Amino acid sequence: MFNKAIQELINHFKKLPGIGEINAQRFVFSVIKKGSDEQKKFGECLLNLDKNINYCPLCQGFSDHDLCEICNNKKRNSQQICVIENVFEIIPMEKTGIYTGVYHVLHGVLSPIDGIKPEDLKIKELLERIKKHSCTEIIFALSTTLEGEATVHYIKNLLPSHIKITHLARGLPTGASLEYADEITLRQALNDRK
Amino acid sequence: MFNKAIQELINHFKKLPGIGEINAQRFVFSVIKKGSDEQKKFGECLLNLDKNINYCPLCQGFSDHDLCEICNNKKRNSQQICVIENVFEIIPMEKTGIYTGVYHVLHGVLSPIDGIKPEDLKIKELLERIKKHSCTEIIFALSTTLEGEATVHYIKNLLPSHIKITHLARGLPTGASLEYADEITLRQALNDRK
Repeated sequence: MFNKAIQELINHFKKLPGIGEINAQRFVFSVIKKGSDEQKKFGECLLNLDKNINYCPLCQGFSDHDLCEICNNKKRNSQQICVIENVFEIIPMEKTGIYTGVYHVLHGVLSPIDGIKPEDLKIKELLERIKKHSCTEIIFALSTTLEGEATVHYIKNLLPSHIKITHLARGLPTGASLEYADEITLRQALNDRK
Repeated sequence: MFNKAIQELINHFKKLPGIGEINAQRFVFSVIKKGSDEQKKFGECLLNLDKNINYCPLCQGFSDHDLCEICNNKKRNSQQICVIENVFEIIPMEKTGIYTGVYHVLHGVLSPIDGIKPEDLKIKELLERIKKHSCTEIIFALSTTLEGEATVHYIKNLLPSHIKITHLARGLPTGASLEYADEITLRQALNDRK
């Protein structure tokens, strides 16, 4: 139906999470309408992405050079580490305005189906960091999915016994109506009532 | 929060239709995970898009070289032209398997808000084509929105009087429940009952 260049771009867009054929076509159409200048800028951005990204050697999040803003901030408590799945989850955590510890980005969760094994995640780096910075608390803030929970379980077993291990609380989201809550969330909210 | 390269890529993804900050971040994250090889291929695809796209001089759809498959097909009725908004709408039309005419892609609809004027659309090309190929029927298959209807109205006034003008029928989609039908669709379905 379409020529090779367009089909190829549709296929690239289709690899993005949650994007199917129809949306991918819509994206290509919108990119075409934007004209060649925009296409070039977008393309160059992708082309140079890898060499423009630096990771913080401590938390494994993005960084401009060496340590990231948060790890470099002396006011943050480096003994309290919040373990998250991906870099972008730092944003909602920081928005709460109440977290004063640091982060550790795993870059994924264990998933046998997708072939993601412990060595694919930044677990070794986490353990080294805990030892080196005499960490006192690990806060797990991974997805509340089967994979997320399996990852928490796996890491827990590797942690030194003196470390305090906590999880983000589970319960009803603010503004939610009971009517739409699933029974697992509700059960958790009932058990953890205070 | 993020470095320049990442923020720039997020901004490019945010320009795609229906994509907000959170989805754009997700896209960037997924692109990063895919590694630099995939990023390069994706980037080059965008970079070379413009020079790899050719348009059919007749229907204004995509084409590999000169006339597109459909315009070049002697079995198609070149006197029956279905006017569509964008190139990708040819796919669902062709999937019906019952349309034997040709297409004309306007590349948008009139929209004063977005600054899209008649000269931005392929209206001139449509009128020339109608004259040259002694067209007998124009089937309007534009969006059933205010903009789509204004475009139909504008073009209708420019068409020679001997041409038969039709629209795709309006009514309930197949498989739809009355319960969820809006009153405008329902009114149309009632008026056009047969």
